[in-house]
Amino acid sequence: MHINKNYQNIAETYLFSEIASRVRKYQEHNPDARIIKMGIGDVTRPLCESAVEAMKKACDEMGTKEGFRGYGPEQGYDFLKTAIRDYYKRTSSVTLDIDEIFISDGAKSDIGNILDIFSDDNVIAVTDPVYPVYVDTNTMAGRRITYLPANADNGFLPMPTDDLEADIIYLCSPNNPTGAAYTKDQLKVWVDFANKRDAVILFDSAYEAFVKDKKVPRSIFAVEGARTCAIEFCSFSKTAGFTGTRCGYTVVPGDLIREGMSLRKMWLRRQTTKFNGVSYPVQCAAAACLSEKGIEEIICNLDYYKYNSEVITSTFDELGWPYTGGKNSPYVWVRCPGGMSSWDFFDALLTKANVVGTPGAGFGQNGEGYLRLTSFNTHGNTMEAMRRIREVF
Amino acid sequence: MHINKNYQNIAETYLFSEIASRVRKYQEHNPDARIIKMGIGDVTRPLCESAVEAMKKACDEMGTKEGFRGYGPEQGYDFLKTAIRDYYKRTSSVTLDIDEIFISDGAKSDIGNILDIFSDDNVIAVTDPVYPVYVDTNTMAGRRITYLPANADNGFLPMPTDDLEADIIYLCSPNNPTGAAYTKDQLKVWVDFANKRDAVILFDSAYEAFVKDKKVPRSIFAVEGARTCAIEFCSFSKTAGFTGTRCGYTVVPGDLIREGMSLRKMWLRRQTTKFNGVSYPVQCAAAACLSEKGIEEIICNLDYYKYNSEVITSTFDELGWPYTGGKNSPYVWVRCPGGMSSWDFFDALLTKANVVGTPGAGFGQNGEGYLRLTSFNTHGNTMEAMRRIREVF
Repeated sequence: MHINKNYQNIAETYLFSEIASRVRKYQEHNPDARIIKMGIGDVTRPLCESAVEAMKKACDEMGTKEGFRGYGPEQGYDFLKTAIRDYYKRTSSVTLDIDEIFISDGAKSDIGNILDIFSDDNVIAVTDPVYPVYVDTNTMAGRRITYLPANADNGFLPMPTDDLEADIIYLCSPNNPTGAAYTKDQLKVWVDFANKRDAVILFDSAYEAFVKDKKVPRSIFAVEGARTCAIEFCSFSKTAGFTGTRCGYTVVPGDLIREGMSLRKMWLRRQTTKFNGVSYPVQCAAAACLSEKGIEEIICNLDYYKYNSEVITSTFDELGWPYTGGKNSPYVWVRCPGGMSSWDFFDALLTKANVVGTPGAGFGQNGEGYLRLTSFNTHGNTMEAMRRIREVF
Repeated sequence: MHINKNYQNIAETYLFSEIASRVRKYQEHNPDARIIKMGIGDVTRPLCESAVEAMKKACDEMGTKEGFRGYGPEQGYDFLKTAIRDYYKRTSSVTLDIDEIFISDGAKSDIGNILDIFSDDNVIAVTDPVYPVYVDTNTMAGRRITYLPANADNGFLPMPTDDLEADIIYLCSPNNPTGAAYTKDQLKVWVDFANKRDAVILFDSAYEAFVKDKKVPRSIFAVEGARTCAIEFCSFSKTAGFTGTRCGYTVVPGDLIREGMSLRKMWLRRQTTKFNGVSYPVQCAAAACLSEKGIEEIICNLDYYKYNSEVITSTFDELGWPYTGGKNSPYVWVRCPGGMSSWDFFDALLTKANVVGTPGAGFGQNGEGYLRLTSFNTHGNTMEAMRRIREVF
């Protein structure tokens, strides 16, 4: 019996435990300090009324003989897939077939599980800094990983070079952690590269609902040619506050063929074999968020976060601190002032302003010298945090 | 870019589509026939009141600022893990640490995903007939599969032989599809074999709540030595009618070490990397099913199915048809009368009694000559189906 030895190569991440430990120590020595956490990576606004009511109605149905539902389709109910198809049409003018949409318990699951359909000998390209899941899931399968430097020179948006060797390319736009977002023209270059090389782009659009800039597509399928080279992952987590409710979706176009096999059919086979669908009440809640009333309600929450982003970015504008993000993203990625390192600035912010951020160095070597703040705290706390930062720096 | 070519080796299963096609054709030619489906593999009783109320309460919480929950622990909330720990103690006198219990969206997901932590060069042992998921998930990873014949000679409960080469052994007890269940003494032989060979037993106990026989353990951890060789998969699907609500759990003992690595820690790493936990309202519903009131309610539903099993088995006793299952299982696996093949008996049942079963041949070559009936239809339909069978045969 042999274990999967690749697990021994996964780096342990101490980022969030180290942050927690430094904050705890500071609070112990300064019990009166009112610390504001601006590193929160999770939404904080409650579920919208439409979602709650739809989910409760579905619970009631499940308690009756007539309304009870057992196993549903592994790839999700048509009522939700149709709602998502219509959402793509409205928000991105993208036309999808409902058989190209797969409902899941979240984008993180799908981003990991999609790798099942690819051979272990593919070379993976990720950006640096990077959402660690892309790296860890491939390390678990022993795949070789290439890092694309994302830095101030390229606006944290690396582009393909002729010598780039990559079979599978992860793009996250708007990006976690940098908040940078590719324009349609930039994504077209990536799509052309992938089509030319027979590569596949895994496009993480978890933050699409935060996009304001008309030049930034909310779906890679708004880019010509993407249907033959891209898979898109999205979820209700950030769009509708579903981080604890759990519902995501993955789009695998019917036109995406590699080595004679339809990746859509392979993913369907993977999901029907290793998955049993998403909870019926949860699917009802997700569909309700895409109804006319639901959309109005979730936009309220999104606007709440967007306003916080503006509070943060206007402060940095005022201080003259360079940053990316905040415009199309709940993340603001700021250059540490005075050439400080990520952790030095973290400590300075904590001890001088009692504000907690996330050191950029924790997301990869190109993150050194940067810090990530998020817009997920309350208005009051966000404004107070910025007031303190202006006062101290 | 290379796809996972093993997907080309997965057998397409036509079992359920072939059944549907034959039933449809018969119904077209006999529009007045009232067909009773006794092949149903899904529960039909509604969720119990405790589950519905707990889930609705959680939905309400999620809609408030104070009660909202975002990302939960990937391995599940302590309140549910504690309830499951106590359930093991009560039903099986098994003591577990809550860190050994992992909550998921269902046993099917975990049974597929657990393979991530094992090397692809392991040899897999499954019974024949078999739940196809064990075979397909390993075929996808290119693992070699050995079949253990389950037949009338061994009571459909194959035991290890000295020449058995197996690194990972799937045991499903009470079994799907045969309904046969291993006694504690029999499982002890398997546990000793696995410990001696450094193999791992993947124990599927999805039907544990149907066990009546005191000699049949509801958990493999009731067997001495299992903590160093077994992983157990279970779910609320059959116990509490959660097939559409989705909640399961996997137990990986802390004592299970292979090649110096803790499989519990490996699974924790797999789940924290590729999974984001189960919906909070669903976890609340699952915990409610294990409360004092919830247990009373789910037992009512289980008794409903158990009564149907008795109606089926007493009919077969009367007819003198040999069968396994029905006693500790919702499945009754009956020998086709008069030496008929699985599909011939299927056709005879359909056309003469208007009753639909599942041909045993669809589960493996040792299933030939058998048919599976289930106890998941209504009392009325089950009794009517048995009345017709007694009349015709």
